[in-house]
Amino acid sequence: MTSFKGQHILSVDQFDRDAIQQVFHIATSMEPYAKRERQTKVLDGAILGNLFFEPSTRTRVSFGTAFNLLGGEVRETVGKENSALAKGESLYDTARVLSGYSDIIAMRHPDAGSVAEFATGSRVPVINGGDGANEHPTQALLDLFTIKRELAFHGQDIDGLHIAMIGDLRYGRTVHSLSKLLCLFKNIRFTLISPAELAMPDKVIAEIENAGHRYEVTDQLEGNLDADICYQTRIQEERFPTQEEANKYRGKFRLNQAIYTRHFQSKTVIMHPLPRDSRTEANELDNDLNVNPNLAIFRQTDNGVLVRMALFALTLGVENLLKKYERDIVWFSNKSEF
Amino acid sequence: MTSFKGQHILSVDQFDRDAIQQVFHIATSMEPYAKRERQTKVLDGAILGNLFFEPSTRTRVSFGTAFNLLGGEVRETVGKENSALAKGESLYDTARVLSGYSDIIAMRHPDAGSVAEFATGSRVPVINGGDGANEHPTQALLDLFTIKRELAFHGQDIDGLHIAMIGDLRYGRTVHSLSKLLCLFKNIRFTLISPAELAMPDKVIAEIENAGHRYEVTDQLEGNLDADICYQTRIQEERFPTQEEANKYRGKFRLNQAIYTRHFQSKTVIMHPLPRDSRTEANELDNDLNVNPNLAIFRQTDNGVLVRMALFALTLGVENLLKKYERDIVWFSNKSEF
Amino acid sequence: MTSFKGQHILSVDQFDRDAIQQVFHIATSMEPYAKRERQTKVLDGAILGNLFFEPSTRTRVSFGTAFNLLGGEVRETVGKENSALAKGESLYDTARVLSGYSDIIAMRHPDAGSVAEFATGSRVPVINGGDGANEHPTQALLDLFTIKRELAFHGQDIDGLHIAMIGDLRYGRTVHSLSKLLCLFKNIRFTLISPAELAMPDKVIAEIENAGHRYEVTDQLEGNLDADICYQTRIQEERFPTQEEANKYRGKFRLNQAIYTRHFQSKTVIMHPLPRDSRTEANELDNDLNVNPNLAIFRQTDNGVLVRMALFALTLGVENLLKKYERDIVWFSNKSEF
Repeated sequence: MTSFKGQHILSVDQFDRDAIQQVFHIATSMEPYAKRERQTKVLDGAILGNLFFEPSTRTRVSFGTAFNLLGGEVRETVGKENSALAKGESLYDTARVLSGYSDIIAMRHPDAGSVAEFATGSRVPVINGGDGANEHPTQALLDLFTIKRELAFHGQDIDGLHIAMIGDLRYGRTVHSLSKLLCLFKNIRFTLISPAELAMPDKVIAEIENAGHRYEVTDQLEGNLDADICYQTRIQEERFPTQEEANKYRGKFRLNQAIYTRHFQSKTVIMHPLPRDSRTEANELDNDLNVNPNLAIFRQTDNGVLVRMALFALTLGVENLLKKYERDIVWFSNKSEF
Repeated sequence: MTSFKGQHILSVDQFDRDAIQQVFHIATSMEPYAKRERQTKVLDGAILGNLFFEPSTRTRVSFGTAFNLLGGEVRETVGKENSALAKGESLYDTARVLSGYSDIIAMRHPDAGSVAEFATGSRVPVINGGDGANEHPTQALLDLFTIKRELAFHGQDIDGLHIAMIGDLRYGRTVHSLSKLLCLFKNIRFTLISPAELAMPDKVIAEIENAGHRYEVTDQLEGNLDADICYQTRIQEERFPTQEEANKYRGKFRLNQAIYTRHFQSKTVIMHPLPRDSRTEANELDNDLNVNPNLAIFRQTDNGVLVRMALFALTLGVENLLKKYERDIVWFSNKSEF
Repeated sequence: MTSFKGQHILSVDQFDRDAIQQVFHIATSMEPYAKRERQTKVLDGAILGNLFFEPSTRTRVSFGTAFNLLGGEVRETVGKENSALAKGESLYDTARVLSGYSDIIAMRHPDAGSVAEFATGSRVPVINGGDGANEHPTQALLDLFTIKRELAFHGQDIDGLHIAMIGDLRYGRTVHSLSKLLCLFKNIRFTLISPAELAMPDKVIAEIENAGHRYEVTDQLEGNLDADICYQTRIQEERFPTQEEANKYRGKFRLNQAIYTRHFQSKTVIMHPLPRDSRTEANELDNDLNVNPNLAIFRQTDNGVLVRMALFALTLGVENLLKKYERDIVWFSNKSEF
């Protein structure tokens, strides 16, 4: 058993298969609280420092809500324009000061490595909520947790998974981290579908190879969609060297219900890290998929709450005390659909 | 009895006379909690998503405070620059995601119709905190609640009311919604005082007529102020086609204590949706009225807390459980003046 | 005994020696709660309006955390671009409205005198969190509280203190307020070290003289550092009339471990109001001092929480009820290092 108590959560590299299983076990036990069947006050009086030096509404609120659901309070900071960081204060100093104001910190920052540097000065556990192009470990964990749950629904396990990753595999932080976590499992098959310019980096490919997994690289959707999980990402046209190049690929990686019916297995699950761009020209995941029960994108964000609750409970050492501090809920809730 | 449980509150059009009476009955029962004579924890553990995609300090804080006063927690979002909406995410997607993070949502957004569109994706009740030029139903309800209480103080009821509305009646969202609600009552007399360019829209006049109420339209304060309630609004000079036109009206619709003494009934109550501009040139409601006991502007904002508490309690179905979850207050409070 | 109950905290001028001792006595009693050995719910249900019309991450979070540590809720406002103040609303009106939304207010605003003006309209106690160049009383109190504790560690008292103040003594609001508070004690010796252009204002010197204390004025670090407390502040180069002038002083007032070893008493305590600029060229307090146990800068910010808890408890009249509302803490905490 990994002990998470008092530890920082900075990178997916910290997690082995056991640690992941532990997080997922606790995340699953969070469901009754997130669904509002019960509530727990196990973190009553604890304070989360929710430091989003780079703003991100959904990740920030997800962390805050996860902490509230365990009974704790949240003190929030958004943006860095007015913070001491802008006046030349070191991340170390900021951490020494702000860690005096909370019991645990969730932090996002635009610079790669900044959260780890901050953690050296913090006197309380720090959870990385995204540090630029570097890491976003809770996103990777919630993606994997979603895969596990979606597969379980079809009686399958992560071992033996066939996943198709589509879109911008070069700059997409989420597919890199997810690939890394999948490498801890057995017999995974990756179908990597992207424009050549946006192919999965060699470093990630090497990790997949070293772990002994199968993979194919292609720039064609057609004939490559018989996967269990299809993980779509957004392609930004400005990523191509010329507009001509962009035009060549325009529309080639978009998914909609017609394509789903034609090319996918009937049980293929569609995931996406969100947000998806819903303006017509750029829609990589059409709204007509919203009624498709295998569209898991909103289950992903719901699962994010469970995973973050689990990480809070584990780092603060209360994962076995949830039931002891339970209370009744008396207000109306339709969170059963959570 | 209207059932509010699990319902969205999007428009004043949802309310009939019974529903209004129900809200006001519950709002009145909130007074001991707002006055800090007692506290209730009926929403202990519930989470409000307070989404102000268009910032508004007083409305945002009023909603948040109302939820805290019932024992709940608040997760807040202000501005939309950094939200997924700015990256092309649909209101539907935003709602699907963010409704996973709370038990109820209060939302303001600059675009007319946006809150209703958001509500189609939300899995929890949504309360409209203002959607551009369209609706701001909690403001209309708090205005009407204030009218009811001020009249009750003089032994009067809303039926039979004579109200003077003054200023910018064309663009003033509050006077439109308030007029609509007043149409549900009997025998109302409207005196509509504004520059011709800023007259009450025909559509609202038609509603008043159809409901069988009396009204006069004028651009003169003098001789038209013998009302029970005088609802003042701000005129923005840039609304006039030319500066000449603006100069013509400059100062004609301002109220101060001298005018009050000369032209008003001694018990006429002055209301205003606030903020009022206190810079000399533009002052539509002079500070010398602050000592006038019939100036109800700060009772309006106080009443806003009661009305929002009532809407939260009704939509979450706890309006009859307040007393059961009461607790003592031990800290100093001079909220008796609330 | 001073009664703080229901009072505003606007200026250090409100405090005499007795009042300070009372605040410090209560601040000391807050330590077990800040250290997370115990928790108290004495302000359960109370609401702090944390109004930072001028943003300041650390002061804002420190106030919010202090209130949470006593069991209360926090409703926050940051910036004034979107507030009614920006639309010409008076501080009086803003205060009348917003004081209906909380039980106590902490407020920062860029304009000198603004917090006192706001307080005239507030129906709840207001604590000044900094009003421009004017006052920041909680900073002065936490500085003095830190001095008291650091001296006590060496068996000394504030009476008889020798303090060196270094850097920008002209514009540094903190050294002015701290000097004023120190004047309430006996037999203080001030060594005032700064460039001539940034010398301590005559008004503060006069107060020191009138209180019968000793002081020296110099622009040399060397030979002047045998103090008990060395209070360093930041010099901004743009404060000098010419760059030549700035160059003349560049580096002359910077402290590092080598200088400490050479010139300081072995027990001299170093303080700084923070943030310190950690970019190489401007570093007035080198990072190599971080391992020096006499560097008290992070104990200052920790102490800020205790002092703000004390002021909340005193103004809300619960300073003797903390123990009565104690609860156990079950989560992991390493706040013993607080």
